[in-house]
Amino acid sequence: MAFPSGLVELIETLSQHGVEQAVICPGSRNAPIMLAISRNTAIQSFSISDERSAGFFALGLALRNKKPVILCCTSGSAALNMAPAIAEAYFQEVPLIVLTADRPQEWIGQWDGQTIFQERIFGTHAKQYFSYSTHAHESLDEIWHRNRIANDAFWSAFSAPQGPVQVNIPIQEPFYPEKGAALPVAHPVRKIQKWISPKLLDISIKTFIKRQLSSSNKVLITVGQMPMNSKIQALLEELMQKGIPVLADSIANLSGIAFDSHDLILANPKTWESLQPDLHIHLGKSFVTKRIKQFLRSNAEKQEWQVNPHPQALVADPFKGLQHLLEIDEVAFLKELTLLNFSEKQQAYFQAWEKEDEIIDSKRSKDINDWNELGIFQKISQALPQSNSEIHVANSLSVRYLNWTKFVPKGIEVFANRGTSGIDGCLSTAIGAAQGNPNLVISIIGDVAFHYDKNALWNSYVSNNVRIIVMNNQGGGIFRNLEGAKDLPELENFMETRQVFNAENTAKDAGVTYISVKNENELLHALNSFFQESDRAQLMEIESNSNINAAALAQYMALFKG
Amino acid sequence: MAFPSGLVELIETLSQHGVEQAVICPGSRNAPIMLAISRNTAIQSFSISDERSAGFFALGLALRNKKPVILCCTSGSAALNMAPAIAEAYFQEVPLIVLTADRPQEWIGQWDGQTIFQERIFGTHAKQYFSYSTHAHESLDEIWHRNRIANDAFWSAFSAPQGPVQVNIPIQEPFYPEKGAALPVAHPVRKIQKWISPKLLDISIKTFIKRQLSSSNKVLITVGQMPMNSKIQALLEELMQKGIPVLADSIANLSGIAFDSHDLILANPKTWESLQPDLHIHLGKSFVTKRIKQFLRSNAEKQEWQVNPHPQALVADPFKGLQHLLEIDEVAFLKELTLLNFSEKQQAYFQAWEKEDEIIDSKRSKDINDWNELGIFQKISQALPQSNSEIHVANSLSVRYLNWTKFVPKGIEVFANRGTSGIDGCLSTAIGAAQGNPNLVISIIGDVAFHYDKNALWNSYVSNNVRIIVMNNQGGGIFRNLEGAKDLPELENFMETRQVFNAENTAKDAGVTYISVKNENELLHALNSFFQESDRAQLMEIESNSNINAAALAQYMALFKG
Repeated sequence: MAFPSGLVELIETLSQHGVEQAVICPGSRNAPIMLAISRNTAIQSFSISDERSAGFFALGLALRNKKPVILCCTSGSAALNMAPAIAEAYFQEVPLIVLTADRPQEWIGQWDGQTIFQERIFGTHAKQYFSYSTHAHESLDEIWHRNRIANDAFWSAFSAPQGPVQVNIPIQEPFYPEKGAALPVAHPVRKIQKWISPKLLDISIKTFIKRQLSSSNKVLITVGQMPMNSKIQALLEELMQKGIPVLADSIANLSGIAFDSHDLILANPKTWESLQPDLHIHLGKSFVTKRIKQFLRSNAEKQEWQVNPHPQALVADPFKGLQHLLEIDEVAFLKELTLLNFSEKQQAYFQAWEKEDEIIDSKRSKDINDWNELGIFQKISQALPQSNSEIHVANSLSVRYLNWTKFVPKGIEVFANRGTSGIDGCLSTAIGAAQGNPNLVISIIGDVAFHYDKNALWNSYVSNNVRIIVMNNQGGGIFRNLEGAKDLPELENFMETRQVFNAENTAKDAGVTYISVKNENELLHALNSFFQESDRAQLMEIESNSNINAAALAQYMALFKG
Repeated sequence: MAFPSGLVELIETLSQHGVEQAVICPGSRNAPIMLAISRNTAIQSFSISDERSAGFFALGLALRNKKPVILCCTSGSAALNMAPAIAEAYFQEVPLIVLTADRPQEWIGQWDGQTIFQERIFGTHAKQYFSYSTHAHESLDEIWHRNRIANDAFWSAFSAPQGPVQVNIPIQEPFYPEKGAALPVAHPVRKIQKWISPKLLDISIKTFIKRQLSSSNKVLITVGQMPMNSKIQALLEELMQKGIPVLADSIANLSGIAFDSHDLILANPKTWESLQPDLHIHLGKSFVTKRIKQFLRSNAEKQEWQVNPHPQALVADPFKGLQHLLEIDEVAFLKELTLLNFSEKQQAYFQAWEKEDEIIDSKRSKDINDWNELGIFQKISQALPQSNSEIHVANSLSVRYLNWTKFVPKGIEVFANRGTSGIDGCLSTAIGAAQGNPNLVISIIGDVAFHYDKNALWNSYVSNNVRIIVMNNQGGGIFRNLEGAKDLPELENFMETRQVFNAENTAKDAGVTYISVKNENELLHALNSFFQESDRAQLMEIESNSNINAAALAQYMALFKG
């Protein structure tokens, strides 16, 4: 049989986190979990039949030893018998990791024995719920997920306020390895370490940072979406001067400070090997573009840290290699880095990034003269006010053009709805942000996102400081750039949202000045006054052709592919 | 690429149920669903960009055409934009089938774009929630599950009170088939037909029953757990006389009426082929033993009906082949069958079952003389009162012995907690059932289930009509019979619940007369008076050895293996 190796890894990961005791309630469905526990020599196992009693017994163990205790039961109503102890543990804040064996989902409700609805069976009395796969044909992504669950289960139970968590584990027959067979070996198991520190870093984390940094030759800092923060900007600027490369997304608010051409640099696969870090430190949230994530995920050898003063309950592991989650203030962390000196090798690594960045700059500095969105974005960028303004960029193609065109001037804050990346409220968000705001609020938005959210203008709060730039290519132009999608017969009817509306009447209804732009002369003329103060909000609609846009973008990308 | 064929089958199943219209909101993640819909020529597709508007548009279509309408959106906040229309549909009782494309679960919370918590995103405003797998390596069980979801989604939306359902569909890249490639063909798709009829059967279902029965040569009725019902008993008895074989579980309350040796008959694999039905009709809930289920599942050719006057919201398909769910009264259905005449071939099929049943009977009529549970059950059976009593049999080994020993006399009702098959409350249930009950209430229970639930006796309601038989083999004896389990070194410590308690002190505390039985003479002597009236409840504890029990059972089973 294929004994599910994931079970061995789950227990081994918990054990590596310091879990030392388990209470196992005898049963059939949970026999593989029992085997994985009882054959792990680092864990002391207790066998108790009555699940109600077993739950409270485990509570007692955890109270005494101040560590999460594993509680394991079979499928069916067994878990419900533990519910009183789980509720007690929740309110008493005692860490328990409850492993409930389950039938595979397809057997629920099929009149099979000991089969009930086990998902979230403890309701609000479990701090977290996880479904743990023991599927026979797991993909690499699923294995990654399993490992995260093992780590999340520990940290959810262990992080204050402590409490019980449920890991529900559907298991297929057969339950037992071949007679005399050993269980699979659990490697590699990744343990994600959390460092929870107050604002003033304690000595253990300072030592850890110093030791790791001094033994790394290629330290790379990446910054995803992040609000503008002058202290962080200053510290990252200082680190760039000391020879630590900082890569930032266009919505990281580090224009003019960090390298921001990562998507174009990494378009050339020849650059990947020499640019790989051995220590990767990430700040902020997500990157918009895919390539930087692929680049970092492709390197399983590096060490990876995430600095995140307020992580959500479950670990975000966007680069799939997180080993240390530093739950500490970014400013305190970066200050610590600026106290260090960096080696010649580290300087050379910085220079490698700097050189690639300069190559990109020299290539993209040339004007793009044809009438297409790439050129349009460039020309708008050149006309943007250098201060007293902010940009709200919409999903989904608009925000990507920012990364490709070095769009944002230093000092202008950029916002984008990248929490869920929806097109549903990009304009409404900008209109709200403009209220009582001394800055000019510039919304850059495609025609589909605009019309989807045009009711943003159906209220009496559209203030004079609003500037809306609608990039109208009569549809969801992003699909023309996607391999696979662009050749489908369904492209026009069901994917692109071909739409023939322009924004004029919407602007008219809302009392917003409307400017139509259809060529370069009109654009340059309009930009002369568009960002000046005015007594009404203004909307500039720029029309272009999605086929030409896609071709220009492909040609532009080809410049960087090496 | 491997385009997920499950999507094509989902849409095709809905189409076969009569779904004719779909509203598709353009997006990337839902492109494969869009393709499966738009290339299904039986479905009229509409493309609408604003999900909020699309939801209400679909509501309008469904209002007009009185059929469920598909509503399909991409991942992320798209589905939330549909929430107002879903709530309207819920309270207005309009059927919508909402297909929400999702990222694979492992990507939730990983800062990827358009990734939110989509499970049960409409909360109570969706009648049902389903997660639909497009996993690349599906097992046969998962394919079975998918097909059930397609059927359940339709019937949940369509059954009164009608309403919206959510089918959440995690989809991996790539999203598009190879350039110019066709989608996979959707076959075989199983459509589960529901027949919803009032007590007096209508003409369409009468015609259907008559036509199907007359074209079947091997009609088999099976009955799972069912409360005692004299009308059903009489009708099934009549059908047995007319030549329709009825197989009943020991907890179907058909002792002396139906064939109840199915688990022993089917122990001989040579019987399987000739005994396979071409029309299988199931009544009642589940079977306790596995073999009958395996036998019926192994036949994909037969027609399968389930007669279930009050099915739960999701279809139970325990034999994996259900085609017609007859939501009608069992008595009305069986009466209809008794009006029919059955062919010679059908009679021959009946005789085949009858012959096998007689063979089993002749083999098992021999006394089992050694001191083991099989023999003990036989001897108890012979001493049971023939009326004015009922049996509450506990999980998990006790209930199985009933099927193996023809335990229950005709006229005695049998109860068992087979809803979840837990051991947690078997004794408490019997004590409750004895309240104000003129019958003798006989609990048959193993030592583990007894001690687990011994607090059933820790109250002042243990009435005189209670008789408890504790089968004490010092542990969960069932595991000694399981291949795989019985050879594991963990058997004794972590699986069997070895326990050394006997029930004497528990009985003493509760004021229950205690009788200890350790051999055949003691048993026969005790049985002389045990079922007589008495002024206290009585508990008989019968000790046996689990190794000897397992060996005797194996020897007994070998008799029937052919």
